[in-house]
Amino acid sequence: MDFSRIATVLVEPREPGNIGAAARALANMGLSRLILVNPADHLTSPAYRMALGGKEVLEGAEVCSSLSEALEGCAFVVGTTRRQRNARTEMLDARSAAREITEAARKNSVAVLFGREDRGLTNDEIEQCQRVATIPAARGNPSINLSQAVMVMAYEIFLAGDDEADAARSPVPRVLATREKLEGLYAHMEEVLLMIDYLHGHNPRHMMRVFREIFGRAGLSEREVQALRGIFHQVKWHAGGRPGEGSRGSG
Amino acid sequence: MDFSRIATVLVEPREPGNIGAAARALANMGLSRLILVNPADHLTSPAYRMALGGKEVLEGAEVCSSLSEALEGCAFVVGTTRRQRNARTEMLDARSAAREITEAARKNSVAVLFGREDRGLTNDEIEQCQRVATIPAARGNPSINLSQAVMVMAYEIFLAGDDEADAARSPVPRVLATREKLEGLYAHMEEVLLMIDYLHGHNPRHMMRVFREIFGRAGLSEREVQALRGIFHQVKWHAGGRPGEGSRGSG
Repeated sequence: MDFSRIATVLVEPREPGNIGAAARALANMGLSRLILVNPADHLTSPAYRMALGGKEVLEGAEVCSSLSEALEGCAFVVGTTRRQRNARTEMLDARSAAREITEAARKNSVAVLFGREDRGLTNDEIEQCQRVATIPAARGNPSINLSQAVMVMAYEIFLAGDDEADAARSPVPRVLATREKLEGLYAHMEEVLLMIDYLHGHNPRHMMRVFREIFGRAGLSEREVQALRGIFHQVKWHAGGRPGEGSRGSG
Repeated sequence: MDFSRIATVLVEPREPGNIGAAARALANMGLSRLILVNPADHLTSPAYRMALGGKEVLEGAEVCSSLSEALEGCAFVVGTTRRQRNARTEMLDARSAAREITEAARKNSVAVLFGREDRGLTNDEIEQCQRVATIPAARGNPSINLSQAVMVMAYEIFLAGDDEADAARSPVPRVLATREKLEGLYAHMEEVLLMIDYLHGHNPRHMMRVFREIFGRAGLSEREVQALRGIFHQVKWHAGGRPGEGSRGSG
């Protein structure tokens, strides 16, 4: 399959050697798009020394100053983490994640995120992902080198992409809403839920995470985002018409 | 399973950093036995700097002066190579090789061989293997870093080997809401959407199908059904409070 819709995003990598090694791993597996968010100097000799056959990927890497910039136009974002976040977050293993990634990439821009060498992705960053993936590892020793983690994911994506090629597993590939549309939905939803006192007494952040997870798993199309926003539009209109706050029509 | 019967053998590795990185990769995947044949100095700072969680594996590595010495007592030897040797040699991919390795390791000592950074294993060395394995890679870029190759094989062995790995692959099995709970949600939702005139002008049946599809794909847990019903409960309460239909509290 065509892997050009799949971007690998390294968030604040500190070791140029890791960036070079990641570039080589991506090149090995036919993935050419590398995005670096606030990286260490990556066009330096320690990076080149590790890149070898991945020199072009390294030199072609796009550098961004924020994660939002890196994710612009992406419809499917998968974060990688070794941490078990919380019992409610569904965690995909690398192999299942690779299948979802190649499936989505048939019609959509996809980003696969890797965090910092020492502390991975922040919770805020994880919240921007529709899916969270983890690489299975031995219980006592789960901390995998950044470029090794990139290799395992890239390898699984490469194999999953091969499978895609022979079997038309899902005849109609779905076009997903972009990240911007999704964030628009969440902002709208949060506003309305605050308005109807739903988030009152709950931790709003936590509750919104629950909904992000539901819709993240579902993988919304643009039409579906529209349909859901239609609900919140109507709710806002009705909730605005409560006693003492003007007539129904003014909401 | 018990991985102690599986030894990873690096033949004449030249880069201490690679040896350290390989040790870390093995430790990540629960493989503790590392054998080095005529290695570069491996207890040096570049090796330690890459080993981290694999420090014990690195320090416990056995050093041999010949491959025969390394393979003493081994019943099953798998060589890794990126080269297509000749038509007679059946080449296993990493995943199939991992299955054979774990199968053999239930009762036998097994060795997995990796060659030199620059030129791999010699033909003589390959001839000492019962099986030859290769890591699938992109056509134009098959040269994989030594420690990355070790990681991919170790990862496949870990997955092939173990109940523990099976458990790690789906860390949190999700318990879904029953059909009754789901139907309760849809009925509640439809009632409220009619109340706020959302379904007016649309075909209600069609719109509800859209939401059924979204939540069907997401696979809701009981808690998530509850969270969603909470929204509709609040909406109903607020929408009930519109002018001319009683006070806000009566909805």
